[in-house]
Amino acid sequence: MRTAGRLMSLMEDDAARAAEVARAVQPHAGQAHVIGVTGPAGAGKSTLLNALAGRLHQQHRRLGIVAVDPSSPFNGGALLGDRIRLQERFGADGPFIRSMSSRGHNQGLARAAFGVVELMDAMGYPMVALETVGAGQNAIDALRIADTVLLVLAPGLGDAVQAMKAGLLELADVVVMNKADRAEAEEAARDLRASLAGHPTPEGWAVPVLTASAAREQGIDQLLTTLDAHRTHLAASGAGDLRRRRAAVAAIEAVLADRLADTVRRLRPAVEDLAPRVAERTLDPFAAAEALLRQAGIRDNWA
Amino acid sequence: MRTAGRLMSLMEDDAARAAEVARAVQPHAGQAHVIGVTGPAGAGKSTLLNALAGRLHQQHRRLGIVAVDPSSPFNGGALLGDRIRLQERFGADGPFIRSMSSRGHNQGLARAAFGVVELMDAMGYPMVALETVGAGQNAIDALRIADTVLLVLAPGLGDAVQAMKAGLLELADVVVMNKADRAEAEEAARDLRASLAGHPTPEGWAVPVLTASAAREQGIDQLLTTLDAHRTHLAASGAGDLRRRRAAVAAIEAVLADRLADTVRRLRPAVEDLAPRVAERTLDPFAAAEALLRQAGIRDNWA
Repeated sequence: MRTAGRLMSLMEDDAARAAEVARAVQPHAGQAHVIGVTGPAGAGKSTLLNALAGRLHQQHRRLGIVAVDPSSPFNGGALLGDRIRLQERFGADGPFIRSMSSRGHNQGLARAAFGVVELMDAMGYPMVALETVGAGQNAIDALRIADTVLLVLAPGLGDAVQAMKAGLLELADVVVMNKADRAEAEEAARDLRASLAGHPTPEGWAVPVLTASAAREQGIDQLLTTLDAHRTHLAASGAGDLRRRRAAVAAIEAVLADRLADTVRRLRPAVEDLAPRVAERTLDPFAAAEALLRQAGIRDNWA
Repeated sequence: MRTAGRLMSLMEDDAARAAEVARAVQPHAGQAHVIGVTGPAGAGKSTLLNALAGRLHQQHRRLGIVAVDPSSPFNGGALLGDRIRLQERFGADGPFIRSMSSRGHNQGLARAAFGVVELMDAMGYPMVALETVGAGQNAIDALRIADTVLLVLAPGLGDAVQAMKAGLLELADVVVMNKADRAEAEEAARDLRASLAGHPTPEGWAVPVLTASAAREQGIDQLLTTLDAHRTHLAASGAGDLRRRRAAVAAIEAVLADRLADTVRRLRPAVEDLAPRVAERTLDPFAAAEALLRQAGIRDNWA
């Protein structure tokens, strides 16, 4: 476990060593069911994953959780406390949890998250959940490495309709209306079912809208059965191969983005040199950037 | 106004045309007081800016507002409704409001936001507020173009302490504890004052912690006076020049990041070609990315 944690830190902090780890790990990975978990803040994603981890534990299956919070360090504290309680509950047999926030390495975050999912896969976790907070482009990008996308909503957040607009609903393979103890939950789920009816995925999967109360551990069995059923569908329909190819594109692009962001960091001293002229408005930022890219030998690849 | 809107759309959508606009606009900008507004979701940033716009309107000063939501399209609807009400209230003399979300162009967002702030500056708005939601790296980066950083908090969010941890407090020049009608507001403000006491900024500015109730339009006069005082301090201490240089670095880096992200997009067909081998685990994503960078002639600039 401590070795795994150290390897994960390498994955996060050191791009060059991450490449070595990725190479070594790759032949052992590819067996896990990777679940991308998304939804608005406050929907109860973490609590739901905790309940899911408990159910899996009873079945002697272990859950890996990679929690990525690309937008807000404000949630970090609460999340962490939650996770410590979870690990106390199950001990060494419990879920493996890795939290990442974006402070200071926004670009490398996707690359690091993908690496950590791969590592948990290679460690033999049969299910790995990649939990992202928020619904920005970062979250959507992260979902591209999942076999199954789970959208978690809750009644009264006014978010179901917003989620649709944000395009998350069209990415979802399974939708859970959490906090089903609330009166409006069943109606919210019904509305969603009505709007999804007759719109199966291109692969012929009718997106189910479940209800659950993660806090009361209700609806978790059905959720697990449904996630397993989606995996079976992916294998039977051939859609799984397409998903894995999409995941490969996402992983390559994450590494590319990380490498290019590194260029920006390396150019920092040169940027500082040009900054006074931009501040005095004798040079505009676009012209400054052009000059720097040319200087770094990158210019000719643009157009 | 319609011309301005069209120029802003260019700034957002078309990097090449944005460079032309930036060049044309630059000589006319540099006069506005740029306020970076940050704080957790739910603190009432938008309502506070609306109240500030009203106060400025009475003084025949107009406020430009650039609202950037890098993390969550979930807030988009509410924000928009708010803004329409604001424009109805003041009519053509009211604040100029431009909302941006990150959907689809995560990278270009910072570059576009800086461009729109510059444009409002050149249009003669004496004060331009750049409002960012969340506290991730995107938000922190955006604050770098501000002359004055305004941190908006509210009691009962449990966020004051978190904000400190997140490093936002150390970026703040002015802190407002909003929702001061709540009983805990005064105490929360006192706690913050105590923790800030004796820690002036490196430039010798003691960060004030104000209270306000944006919804009741209370405390807005004092906020405006304080923002003006910070600007005076920047000019008198010479700190303003340093800030402008920092803003220039941020603007150049935003353009660089945008250009490099464009490289990733251009490499997409080549990424798709390599994806099957990564999916089959005969090639790892790092090796794939290396090969692509070499192929694009960029490789030699790394190492």
